[in-house]
Amino acid sequence: MRIGILTSGGDCPGLNAAIRGVARAAYQTLDAEIIGIRAGYRGLIDGDYQIMERGQFSGILTLGGTILGTSRTPFRNMRVVEEDNVDKVYAMKMNYKAMKLDCLVALGGNGTHKTANLLSEEGLNVIGLPKTIDNDIFGTDFTFGFHTAVDIATDVIDRIHTTAASHSRCMVIEIMGNKAGWLTLYAGMAGGADVILLPEIPYDIERVAKVLDERAKLGKFFTIIAVAEGAISQEEAAMKKKEREAARTEREFYNVSQHIAAQLEQLTNVECRTVIPGHMQRGGSPCAYDRVLSTQFGVHAAKLIKDGQFGVTVALVGNQITQNRLADIAGVPKPVDPDSQIVKAARNISISFGD
Amino acid sequence: MRIGILTSGGDCPGLNAAIRGVARAAYQTLDAEIIGIRAGYRGLIDGDYQIMERGQFSGILTLGGTILGTSRTPFRNMRVVEEDNVDKVYAMKMNYKAMKLDCLVALGGNGTHKTANLLSEEGLNVIGLPKTIDNDIFGTDFTFGFHTAVDIATDVIDRIHTTAASHSRCMVIEIMGNKAGWLTLYAGMAGGADVILLPEIPYDIERVAKVLDERAKLGKFFTIIAVAEGAISQEEAAMKKKEREAARTEREFYNVSQHIAAQLEQLTNVECRTVIPGHMQRGGSPCAYDRVLSTQFGVHAAKLIKDGQFGVTVALVGNQITQNRLADIAGVPKPVDPDSQIVKAARNISISFGD
Amino acid sequence: MRIGILTSGGDCPGLNAAIRGVARAAYQTLDAEIIGIRAGYRGLIDGDYQIMERGQFSGILTLGGTILGTSRTPFRNMRVVEEDNVDKVYAMKMNYKAMKLDCLVALGGNGTHKTANLLSEEGLNVIGLPKTIDNDIFGTDFTFGFHTAVDIATDVIDRIHTTAASHSRCMVIEIMGNKAGWLTLYAGMAGGADVILLPEIPYDIERVAKVLDERAKLGKFFTIIAVAEGAISQEEAAMKKKEREAARTEREFYNVSQHIAAQLEQLTNVECRTVIPGHMQRGGSPCAYDRVLSTQFGVHAAKLIKDGQFGVTVALVGNQITQNRLADIAGVPKPVDPDSQIVKAARNISISFGD
Amino acid sequence: MRIGILTSGGDCPGLNAAIRGVARAAYQTLDAEIIGIRAGYRGLIDGDYQIMERGQFSGILTLGGTILGTSRTPFRNMRVVEEDNVDKVYAMKMNYKAMKLDCLVALGGNGTHKTANLLSEEGLNVIGLPKTIDNDIFGTDFTFGFHTAVDIATDVIDRIHTTAASHSRCMVIEIMGNKAGWLTLYAGMAGGADVILLPEIPYDIERVAKVLDERAKLGKFFTIIAVAEGAISQEEAAMKKKEREAARTEREFYNVSQHIAAQLEQLTNVECRTVIPGHMQRGGSPCAYDRVLSTQFGVHAAKLIKDGQFGVTVALVGNQITQNRLADIAGVPKPVDPDSQIVKAARNISISFGD
Repeated sequence: MRIGILTSGGDCPGLNAAIRGVARAAYQTLDAEIIGIRAGYRGLIDGDYQIMERGQFSGILTLGGTILGTSRTPFRNMRVVEEDNVDKVYAMKMNYKAMKLDCLVALGGNGTHKTANLLSEEGLNVIGLPKTIDNDIFGTDFTFGFHTAVDIATDVIDRIHTTAASHSRCMVIEIMGNKAGWLTLYAGMAGGADVILLPEIPYDIERVAKVLDERAKLGKFFTIIAVAEGAISQEEAAMKKKEREAARTEREFYNVSQHIAAQLEQLTNVECRTVIPGHMQRGGSPCAYDRVLSTQFGVHAAKLIKDGQFGVTVALVGNQITQNRLADIAGVPKPVDPDSQIVKAARNISISFGD
Repeated sequence: MRIGILTSGGDCPGLNAAIRGVARAAYQTLDAEIIGIRAGYRGLIDGDYQIMERGQFSGILTLGGTILGTSRTPFRNMRVVEEDNVDKVYAMKMNYKAMKLDCLVALGGNGTHKTANLLSEEGLNVIGLPKTIDNDIFGTDFTFGFHTAVDIATDVIDRIHTTAASHSRCMVIEIMGNKAGWLTLYAGMAGGADVILLPEIPYDIERVAKVLDERAKLGKFFTIIAVAEGAISQEEAAMKKKEREAARTEREFYNVSQHIAAQLEQLTNVECRTVIPGHMQRGGSPCAYDRVLSTQFGVHAAKLIKDGQFGVTVALVGNQITQNRLADIAGVPKPVDPDSQIVKAARNISISFGD
Repeated sequence: MRIGILTSGGDCPGLNAAIRGVARAAYQTLDAEIIGIRAGYRGLIDGDYQIMERGQFSGILTLGGTILGTSRTPFRNMRVVEEDNVDKVYAMKMNYKAMKLDCLVALGGNGTHKTANLLSEEGLNVIGLPKTIDNDIFGTDFTFGFHTAVDIATDVIDRIHTTAASHSRCMVIEIMGNKAGWLTLYAGMAGGADVILLPEIPYDIERVAKVLDERAKLGKFFTIIAVAEGAISQEEAAMKKKEREAARTEREFYNVSQHIAAQLEQLTNVECRTVIPGHMQRGGSPCAYDRVLSTQFGVHAAKLIKDGQFGVTVALVGNQITQNRLADIAGVPKPVDPDSQIVKAARNISISFGD
Repeated sequence: MRIGILTSGGDCPGLNAAIRGVARAAYQTLDAEIIGIRAGYRGLIDGDYQIMERGQFSGILTLGGTILGTSRTPFRNMRVVEEDNVDKVYAMKMNYKAMKLDCLVALGGNGTHKTANLLSEEGLNVIGLPKTIDNDIFGTDFTFGFHTAVDIATDVIDRIHTTAASHSRCMVIEIMGNKAGWLTLYAGMAGGADVILLPEIPYDIERVAKVLDERAKLGKFFTIIAVAEGAISQEEAAMKKKEREAARTEREFYNVSQHIAAQLEQLTNVECRTVIPGHMQRGGSPCAYDRVLSTQFGVHAAKLIKDGQFGVTVALVGNQITQNRLADIAGVPKPVDPDSQIVKAARNISISFGD
């Protein structure tokens, strides 16, 4: 039994823990050989891989990043299967055979799962493992990496809190998440943000300004705003995509946090500053939650291999580790539902979503 | 509308976050007055309380401990309702009336919930909030405080790992949990323990010794053992409770970790050391996960009050915040199931439970 | 005895610990009354202050920010004493008398010390306490706040390391410090940076590019660059200040990290990304080192008051807490010496300064 | 040029950072070959070593423990040179020659330095590097590992603070340090302890009890006591060593914290609990301060080798890295001076030393 593993897309805490979970369970329950494929699908296309030794999975549980390396999607455009893409898919199939793999375990986010599904449809035995700090993979309650990123972003907000209060400033913290606001929502609630702005709930800058004014009336001269990098205003939401992009090019600041801070300084008398923690949100050792989840996900992948169940991705549903068919979840978005219990809870403790 | 709040039992991270959640939601959705009862049920018995101001709930989201103070159960023996207990229950009912409460929110663990149920049966409007680092309250997937304690215990194991490896020692880390092994199980998995010993899975010390010997054969001269303070050997498990207690009194070391370390030093050639992090596992700022969960729990309590739904405790089931009847969960244990998915996952990555 | 305290300039970890040190020592050894002046010198100008109670100094040792609030320098231009400044100085002297202060303790950085010196020259009893994450106050080995900021910036670099390695990228991390590179130097060394760029050592971008190329030859496809926000190129260093500013306005990116990343992407084949942790470097709970140092500094200020020794600022020299005359240190820069032992040590472990 | 390195005594954060510093500077400035000696002097006695490759020093800056392994002193009794010791010294000299070493770098604490001095007197080229969390090596302001241990112990006290306040308890935290109280002093001050008990300042338990009583009078019903594991009472201090040991055997609790807690419960009405964090104080990743110091120490060792300066150990004096003669510092204690500035500062903020 030969199992190929690759990690694809942006790195995220827990990748190594999941790799270790697959490997240890595969060694113990399947007596398998593990093939490590370098730098994501690129390694599968180029035939860049190595046969792993058991010792290589020791001591990696706590390590950030991925020992296998990673790269972004190999395809320029997933929707149109251009000639270039056909060649790449062909190369992946050939290398899968050349490596004599019995199955391929692909750890990644949405892009990774689309490619995994494509390879599955082409007849390869593929199992996905849902990693992403964005928590936006359909069919799983949580992806691994998410809670670590929440911890990091929350720590940033905690630190900013003291500087905001000392200087009586409004601090706008831009948190990762282009299409889904999960990370901003959780970190905002955990960090005690006064305003949370998400891609899923377009904001009205006047309403945000009002929050600052009302807080000032209560003697609170500082405000914490957690904004997802993909947050959009109600005006923008009403535009077509191209119009929106054009409008963004024209405005003074590219980053949404800087744009919002500039607007708020005009609408209120409050000094505004921005913080953009960026890539640090996806780095470093996974938190305990993610280590356990990644391990369970990895072990479940080995179980699916043992059962010969392919074309699926591992998932957490309620308290159970289970799986979904790749065909059912690839490309399906998982946004924050504005009417969900957790958004309502946030509103009930007076957090404004700017709407 | 007057809402009384108390925190009872051992303190745990997230209590203040939950208190803040109840208060902010109650102020916003019920325009209620919050009465803070001092030091748990003791304050209800003694009439020791204060009317809270809104500002008192500011800045407490991130704070460990409880601003209301806490104390252990007011009753010596819950099973037999002695005269003393009758007096105390009577005092609590009288003070509930004297404070003109419309309801009482009690944050605590198993003991707290038993008393909450008793007061509910006596006709008071009671709502429970399940806090405990032990995660052993029936009917909820997780209690708040648990994941913070897992983080802390995992950090301890991480630190011990380097000293274990440098000195080629076996380190036995004793983790809180007398009746339930959840904390040890999660921290052990997250910390990469080689052996995990739980109250729910009696161990055979010879088998644990064998793990050390087998690791030495593979060139691994250190071993990490995570043991719950309530772990028991198979011999002890076969005894009656009194016999077991007598046996424990006779042995050289009271703490299970020290007892095990001494036994392993006799059975193997490996130097063994113990670490007992103790109370630090329940202190300090809650992790992001617990801040969000506590907040959601608190808000849900306010919603239940609004709906006039009493005699219940808040719970997390799957991804939803819901509630259980106090009568259904009070006094019901929630041990780790030895046949559960997570225990099997641990076994599949070669973690030994010593059985 | 009435002691006024104010905190001025950017907030920084340890301010509250130092305030507590002054207050507790003043209460115990001088039986003094403490007057808290709001928002830095602005409070002294406006007469915005309160008599503090002992309890207000409880529980603040671990708190980031400043319980007194802060503001930037009250003067637009320190060099020319404009009419406006004369009025402000007059107001400060009047309020000092109106508050019946026996002395003023001013916690702050370089700007704060210049104003402290000015007030001292005007006849007020002033004692300075050197806080700044920049560590650029002349005459003290370390300022408080510095080591906490080093910890934070190092943690950022640690997290970025895993993402850099996984993606084979060059990560450019922009660390606070406009005029002095201490924070970047220490965090860069602690975080294992390959390149450290400081205001004190102008860099040649071609040499930096060469580091990337040489690492690639050794099979290391990622590089960590720690750059101070005030780092300058050798070309810029040769310009006059106005020319330099004009040149910066013209270039594509304002932030030095983004500018460098863009240049390196042109000069090499390596993908470059930037991280700008910003204000989080000055927030949150002080590290143990800073708590002890702040406390010692605060206690020493109380001792100086007792000894009637004014017109000085507290300092750490070697292992001893001592003081310097404000007149000797105000306005004196304390840059990193390119020939110092620590810079040489960094060079000896192959860290490049791009020169 | 062949340089042997070994780490001896209890492991401590920064060992790997220092090893890396020596190696990188030695490779760069001396083009040396590094020989890693396994498990301290034991490896020198047994000839257990390996020629290191450059890659082995990559990625270890942040790692706790020691990649070389360590062991306690090879001698049973340093004072009497028994026959066994003579044989061991002979073996070390022979292996030094067999390995063709030009010098030996020994990283360790007091025991390590005594042996280093002995080997130096026997004619070997030896350089010491002062590591210990106890900070008790004569002639250096700080050892590496110390500030990391202070951070860890402070974090423990921080966590205990919330539980102490919530339960109105006295918490007695036992901190490492048998002969020297530096770690307890610094962590106690950083953690806001009310009482600090050190080996250097014998305590009177009645005075400690009085602190609890006086705090209760002020409405503070909790107390934090930081006690060094080697703290002694005034009664014990008056005894001869054998008497003292006999007295300790008789008392109910072996650990000083438990002994003190039991005594205080008898003398006061306050509930007391103990926490003994133990080995976790010496584990895990070094803090930024220690990473920089260790690196500088390592680089300085390489410089001493280049200069042919042997029979010395590296030291921090004031702000400079320098060296002391092994003969001058080996076996010389470095206790906390009860009359030092820092102890006085602690007293001035009302910390009691129980004397």
